Amino acid sequence: MTDKAFLDSIKWTDDGLVPAIAQDAKSGRILMMAWMNRESLQLTADEGRAVYWSRSRQQLWRKGESSGHTQIVSEIRLDCDEDVIVLQVEQLGGMACHTGRESCFYRVLKDGQWVAVDPVLKDPKEIYA
Amino acid sequence: MTDKAFLDSIKWTDDGLVPAIAQDAKSGRILMMAWMNRESLQLTADEGRAVYWSRSRQQLWRKGESSGHTQIVSEIRLDCDEDVIVLQVEQLGGMACHTGRESCFYRVLKDGQWVAVDPVLKDPKEIYA
Repeated sequence: MTDKAFLDSIKWTDDGLVPAIAQDAKSGRILMMAWMNRESLQLTADEGRAVYWSRSRQQLWRKGESSGHTQIVSEIRLDCDEDVIVLQVEQLGGMACHTGRESCFYRVLKDGQWVAVDPVLKDPKEIYA
Repeated sequence: MTDKAFLDSIKWTDDGLVPAIAQDAKSGRILMMAWMNRESLQLTADEGRAVYWSRSRQQLWRKGESSGHTQIVSEIRLDCDEDVIVLQVEQLGGMACHTGRESCFYRVLKDGQWVAVDPVLKDPKEIYA
């Protein structure tokens, strides 16, 4: 892909980033939200797998590079304000979260407290061993 | 609700905001992403309907206040990094987008271009008349 026009139409933050939401294409479960810069979005489109920008490490983050939990991307959408991305993904390994859960959104607000309601599928020590 | 501890556990941006993703509780469709400050998240929890913070207008934004397209909130989730919210909502009027579409994510990346693939359900002029 050589046409970069689709990157130019995005309203990047001052840091050159755009939030990207990963949704499980089959179950519809929202798995995580991370950030992308121009290069990571281009790579995601080219490679067909989610490549984010790690703000903490300040480097490209090929999701699954250490865990094996790659996200195969079947669709990329943009919102009306052109400042948020949604990815439809197949989540390899069945878990997106570094805590070993399917989704990073495993806590629910109940009676004024965040309560973890989703099971840990795999011990993180095993994931990142 | 008087216990504000659930607000303190959120990692707010330097501007005091957190991104909030609204998902249709029935269809699983991701409808939009907007931002919340402490007050808007507290109000969302208290009132059971989505209240965002409008960055452009710099004021509270009760979703649907001008369109009638209120979002009834059935669940509020927080992610592992404590910096993103997901709302499960019932979207009144069946459309979340100011363009008159069900979802703000109506454009798909195809052959290097963003292509609008979802129908306009109602003319925005009628929505905001």
